[in-house]
Amino acid sequence: MAKTAEIFAIGTELLGADRLDTNSLAITEQLNLLGVEVVAKHVLGDDRERLSKDLRMAIERSNIVITCGGLGPTEDDVTREAAAAALGCKLVLSLEQESILISKFRQLNRPMAKNNLRQAYLLEGAEALPNPLGTAPGQFISTPHGALALLPGPPRELKPMLVNELVPRLKPVLPPQVIRVRTFRITGIGESDLDALIAPVYKQYTNPVTTVLSAPGDQTVILRAKAATEAEADALLRELGNKIAELLGDRIYSEKPQEGLETVVGCLLRKRRATVSTAESCTGGLLAGRLTEQGGSSDFYLGGFVTYSVAQKRDVLGVSKDLLERYGPVSEPVAAAMAEGARNRTGSTYALSTTGYAGPSGGTEFDPVGTVYLGIAGPGGTQVIRSRYGADRFRIRALAVQAALDLLRKTLLKTA
Amino acid sequence: MAKTAEIFAIGTELLGADRLDTNSLAITEQLNLLGVEVVAKHVLGDDRERLSKDLRMAIERSNIVITCGGLGPTEDDVTREAAAAALGCKLVLSLEQESILISKFRQLNRPMAKNNLRQAYLLEGAEALPNPLGTAPGQFISTPHGALALLPGPPRELKPMLVNELVPRLKPVLPPQVIRVRTFRITGIGESDLDALIAPVYKQYTNPVTTVLSAPGDQTVILRAKAATEAEADALLRELGNKIAELLGDRIYSEKPQEGLETVVGCLLRKRRATVSTAESCTGGLLAGRLTEQGGSSDFYLGGFVTYSVAQKRDVLGVSKDLLERYGPVSEPVAAAMAEGARNRTGSTYALSTTGYAGPSGGTEFDPVGTVYLGIAGPGGTQVIRSRYGADRFRIRALAVQAALDLLRKTLLKTA
Repeated sequence: MAKTAEIFAIGTELLGADRLDTNSLAITEQLNLLGVEVVAKHVLGDDRERLSKDLRMAIERSNIVITCGGLGPTEDDVTREAAAAALGCKLVLSLEQESILISKFRQLNRPMAKNNLRQAYLLEGAEALPNPLGTAPGQFISTPHGALALLPGPPRELKPMLVNELVPRLKPVLPPQVIRVRTFRITGIGESDLDALIAPVYKQYTNPVTTVLSAPGDQTVILRAKAATEAEADALLRELGNKIAELLGDRIYSEKPQEGLETVVGCLLRKRRATVSTAESCTGGLLAGRLTEQGGSSDFYLGGFVTYSVAQKRDVLGVSKDLLERYGPVSEPVAAAMAEGARNRTGSTYALSTTGYAGPSGGTEFDPVGTVYLGIAGPGGTQVIRSRYGADRFRIRALAVQAALDLLRKTLLKTA
Repeated sequence: MAKTAEIFAIGTELLGADRLDTNSLAITEQLNLLGVEVVAKHVLGDDRERLSKDLRMAIERSNIVITCGGLGPTEDDVTREAAAAALGCKLVLSLEQESILISKFRQLNRPMAKNNLRQAYLLEGAEALPNPLGTAPGQFISTPHGALALLPGPPRELKPMLVNELVPRLKPVLPPQVIRVRTFRITGIGESDLDALIAPVYKQYTNPVTTVLSAPGDQTVILRAKAATEAEADALLRELGNKIAELLGDRIYSEKPQEGLETVVGCLLRKRRATVSTAESCTGGLLAGRLTEQGGSSDFYLGGFVTYSVAQKRDVLGVSKDLLERYGPVSEPVAAAMAEGARNRTGSTYALSTTGYAGPSGGTEFDPVGTVYLGIAGPGGTQVIRSRYGADRFRIRALAVQAALDLLRKTLLKTA
């Protein structure tokens, strides 16, 4: 059975509008490596009663409970007392910890305040976790379903204690288990359409667990498989993953979690020794910005034009006055002529163009706000697609940039 | 008596080792302005049973309970069901929400998946909170000690709903207290230099409370005064605020919290009936992207050039071969010639240019990675400033864009 964990970050300063607990990320990483799933994280102030109540509930329902913070010497630091109340045990003075504390203060050449002695008290039956970088020892104690650990709050004290002291003590408590992950990065399909397509398949599996994350024009599907061995976990991922890959086809642009669409497009261009340029109207430079996001993008990106005014489309890109007057600047022929103009001006292998109504005002009856024409010119000719995005200016521009990148990706895949 | 709140961030993806909930910060900020103290924050997965149990406990012990996330259309999204179970009430189909959903999908020109109808169910007795930027409405319902609100997870949807819909509904539930805020938006000074400059002044005051927020090249100083009346709170703000304004001078570009530097620059250009164009190298289109962020920017933005290659700088902007060879593409003379080239090509009143080493590789001994030359050409002549940013590629580009906008702002202020 899967083992579960809860993490408590303790400290009133973590409940303001400007600070986040980050210790839980390091703890989660180590727990996941041990095959333990984090099912809840809590941030609580230095409030003994509330903390002891929530800790008791966590200890009752989860295997591993880890707290960070609240082990300092002052009266504010109530984690030890709250944990004792949650477990229904006493705090006892450890003579060993007392002498460690005394010698630490002697080394620091500082007088030890009476309060500091609070840090030498351990939960009855707990093991102290040495803290070479601070005065507060951690604590580790068995619970009916697993274990409770108290760690110090400062990340530089917590991280070594977590890896060097806590993980080795957790291992014997846990069954051997590995978690393996497979990730699909997807574009060209909306969140609910994506779910309608793949949910009937992934819902049949409880292992791997499937999560879908959504950003404008950019979806991520994450499969997490648990098993006793890597090979078993990989087999589980392969079975469901291949089904999903088949359903999504070339809408999957990458299986690397951190690889954005601009990186994939850059790799494809490099492989084909091809270059690209841009001619943007409604996206106002953001498409160029994405294509140059990675270092070394001058390998494949030659340059671009932000032709925001009609005059610029004509003078800079050479779009004919006739086309602009007959069809208007937001139109299929103008998108085609913009891409061709950029390709001619720069000598790039491919050129992408965008022209549309990003709003909030503007648009026509036939082409309302949200309509964007995306053009691509290349060795195989020129193509224009018309899209309509029901969104605000920020999203319309982001969706158009993503769709333009995807148009280039699909064109490059065809010319493999 | 102080009112208390708990916040739940819901979504299995928030329990991994690489993501943090940040919505709780925005929620905390608004609650603090209302005089409400956040006493606990929780992150839970899409697990209906655990979520409903923890929600019930929070509703019993805290005045305000706010959830974010889990309102999507898929079966994974269990917040509605968990909240109903926690309150012991039913979920009822709202015909009004159903018709809003249907019309949203019609506007998007997309078929509505059957699953989407889940978003039209409300807790019995709850009020729907409109979501103009997404499909999931929020929900607001009274509880024995105060209120429960369900907000959507995407920050772009959550933030406006929080400020425009939830805060006005919470106010009547809470005791009267006036909190007034004064905000300074600042550029051209780093975070620690800013704090060294103003901390000696604001540290003398506990009311107003001063908060400093920091983004690349963009600092925000917020003063919050509490008092029984608006006049008293405003007097407190005036005293400290005027001292800070004097220290910072024209590094303050706005006192409107939501007004970015691109908006201020756009207003100044409009007032002077002036136009601008751009010639970008290292910022790769992002400067144009910022200048066109607001609707109606075609009033003042004519167009731009992303001249990533040396050939483009020469052929498109007319930078002379001699300059490029003698000084290299990242140099003061080339930055000046790029700005002048863009101004000549477009006929704009002003032109901005950027050329530099955004990294991670590149640079020279004299101009290491992080060096950026920013040029401005205008009726008063051409000026170039050299900056050095010790940062990664993402921040170097963001800092250069911000500095270029500020160069234009300061030039415009001089020609008032």
